Amino acid sequence: MNRIGKYTVRTDGVFVSSAAAAVGKTEHDGPMGEYFDFSYPDDGIGQTSWEQAESELHRKAVETAIKKANLMPDEINIHFGGDLLNQCCATTFGVKDFNIPIAGLFGACSTMALALALSAVLVSSGYADNALASASSHFCSAEKQFRFPLEYGGQRPPTAQRTATAAGAGIISNSDNGSSVKIQSAIFGRICDPDITDANNMGAAMAPAAADTIARFLNDTNTMPEDYDIILTGDLGAIGSELLIDILAENYNIDISKVHNDCGLMLFDKEKQDVYSGGSGCGCSASVVCSYIFKKLSSGELKKVFFAGTGALMSPTTSQQSLSIPSIAHGVLLTGKGV
Amino acid sequence: MNRIGKYTVRTDGVFVSSAAAAVGKTEHDGPMGEYFDFSYPDDGIGQTSWEQAESELHRKAVETAIKKANLMPDEINIHFGGDLLNQCCATTFGVKDFNIPIAGLFGACSTMALALALSAVLVSSGYADNALASASSHFCSAEKQFRFPLEYGGQRPPTAQRTATAAGAGIISNSDNGSSVKIQSAIFGRICDPDITDANNMGAAMAPAAADTIARFLNDTNTMPEDYDIILTGDLGAIGSELLIDILAENYNIDISKVHNDCGLMLFDKEKQDVYSGGSGCGCSASVVCSYIFKKLSSGELKKVFFAGTGALMSPTTSQQSLSIPSIAHGVLLTGKGV
Repeated sequence: MNRIGKYTVRTDGVFVSSAAAAVGKTEHDGPMGEYFDFSYPDDGIGQTSWEQAESELHRKAVETAIKKANLMPDEINIHFGGDLLNQCCATTFGVKDFNIPIAGLFGACSTMALALALSAVLVSSGYADNALASASSHFCSAEKQFRFPLEYGGQRPPTAQRTATAAGAGIISNSDNGSSVKIQSAIFGRICDPDITDANNMGAAMAPAAADTIARFLNDTNTMPEDYDIILTGDLGAIGSELLIDILAENYNIDISKVHNDCGLMLFDKEKQDVYSGGSGCGCSASVVCSYIFKKLSSGELKKVFFAGTGALMSPTTSQQSLSIPSIAHGVLLTGKGV
Repeated sequence: MNRIGKYTVRTDGVFVSSAAAAVGKTEHDGPMGEYFDFSYPDDGIGQTSWEQAESELHRKAVETAIKKANLMPDEINIHFGGDLLNQCCATTFGVKDFNIPIAGLFGACSTMALALALSAVLVSSGYADNALASASSHFCSAEKQFRFPLEYGGQRPPTAQRTATAAGAGIISNSDNGSSVKIQSAIFGRICDPDITDANNMGAAMAPAAADTIARFLNDTNTMPEDYDIILTGDLGAIGSELLIDILAENYNIDISKVHNDCGLMLFDKEKQDVYSGGSGCGCSASVVCSYIFKKLSSGELKKVFFAGTGALMSPTTSQQSLSIPSIAHGVLLTGKGV
C-alpha cells in the first residue's frame, strides 16, 4: 500500500511545477503583496457581479499557473478546483473555457489542500502527467452568501474573519519544471463537530479538525513539530490558532507553538488592516501557498512545510436553521529545494 | 501511464463490494421500487427540515452500504460524497458521525459517477483498501434551493425534471466481497456550455456534456456502442435523452439508440407518475446504480454498463443573474459477474 501509518498517503515523484495567485486590493496591501502575480485595484475585478468577479480572479490564477508551467490546457489531465459559493459557481464559470477535465470539490477553506492532495495522488499513481489544483474566494460574494450583503452595513464581532479576495492555482506534475518543490505525502480530513453555531467564529469551529489532522499526520509519519519549518494552517485566524495550539498541547501532548503559522494571519497585517481575527476563505490559503510559500520552497529558504487547510463546512441554510458548523482539515507535506 | 487513450483511466483490481439505496415514497412506487434497500412513507423522513431529511437519507444509504460490505467505518480509508445543496450540507450533516476521511465533491447530478471514478482511482493505485462513494438529493430541498419552495405552488413546464428523493452509496474495494462487480475504467468530464439558461430544461443543458464524455470514452477504448449492454446516462430525462442520441449521431457519427438508457427514465414511470421529463438529482442515478444496476451486474444479467453521470452545474445565484447552465458528465465502466 502507498500509505504511511493509518491515514497518510505517500505521493512519490510529485512536483509543484508552477503556482500563481491573483488577489484584490486589500490582499495586495498586506504583508504578502510583493509575492502575488496579479492584483486588482478594486474588488469588482471589472465584472458586473461579485460572483463573476470571483470567477475572473479564479480564471486569472489558473491561466497564469498554466502559462508559468509552459503547458497548454490540453496537456493537463485533471483539474481539482472549488470555492465557497453555492454549487461551486465561481470555479465553474471561471474555468469552463479551459476545457480541462474537472472534478469539483467542496472543502470550504480547506479546498486548496484537498485539491493539492488529490492532484498529488493522481500524478503519483500515474493517472495524470499534469494536474491542476485551484481555489478562490471573494470578500463581497462570501459576505452576501454566508452573512449579509455589504449594503446592509452589518457589524462584525472581533471573532469574525475577513474572507480573502484571492485565488491560487498550482500545476502538479511528474516532472519538476525547475521548481524543485514536491508534494511528498497527503492526508484527508475527517469531519469534526465541536458544536459551535456562530458563523462569526469559524476559527473555533475549525481548530479541533486541524488538531485531528496534524496529530494523525505526525503520528503516522513518526515525526515531531520541530521536523518542520512551518506547520501551516489555513485559515484559523488569531483565535483559532491559539485554540489549535491549546488543543494539541492539552489533548495530544503536542507542542507546535514554535513552528505554527496560519495563512489567515500571514495574508493581512492585523495591526494595520481592519481584518478582525485574520483572513479566511478558500482563496486565503490558496494565494499564500501559491505565492510566498511556493517561492520560499522553490528557493530552498523553506525545506519542509506541512500545510493543513482548514474548512468550516457551514452553509447559509444550516446556519439559518441554527445547526452547528462541522469542520475539516486536509493536509499535504510540501518540501523545498534540496530535500 | 495508467491511461487508455487520451482521457480514460484504467482502474485494475477494483470491485464494488456492496451498494445500497434509500429512497422516498414516489421513488419506491416507481419501476425500481423492489430493488431499493429502504424507503420512507413520506418525504419528511422523520426530520424537521427538508435538508435534514436529505441528510438522514444519505446517512441511511451509507450506513447500509458499509454494513453490507461487512466493514466497520474505521476500515474505510476515504469517502467521496456530495449532493446538490449549498455547500454540500446534506452530505456533511448526514455522514459526519462516521468519522471517515472525506473529500466533498460537487458535480451536480454527476456526483455519483465522479465519486465512483475517484474511489476507483484511489483503490486501484493502492491508496485505499476500501473507499466509499455516495450522493443524495431530495425533491423538496432541491425545489426550495433551485426554483421555488413547494409552498408557493409553482407550476412546472413539461421540460422540467423531478429531483429524486433518494440516496445511493457504494463500497469500492480491492477485494470483491462476493459481488463480482468491477469498475474497470473511468473518465472525467469537461465542462460544456450550450448557453441554455432555463433551469427547467436541464436535459438540454446536459446532453452535449454527455455526448462529449461518451464519444471520448468510446474513442479512447476503441469500442462501439454495441459492446455495452447499456450506455447509461443519469439524468437526462426524456428530452435530454433524445437530444443526446441526436447529438452523437449528427456530430460524432455514433449511434447509441439501441443501448442507451437513462436513470431519470428508469426511476419513475413517466406514464403513471407525474414527473414531467423524468427524474433528476444526485440521488437519481446514485439510487438506480446502487440498486438495480448493481444487482443485475452482480447476478451476471448485465455484463458491461458504461455509466455517464450528467450534471447541470447551475446555482440559484447564477440562475438569478440569467447566466447559462454549464454542464459536465463523468463516467465509469462497470462490469458484471463473469467479465
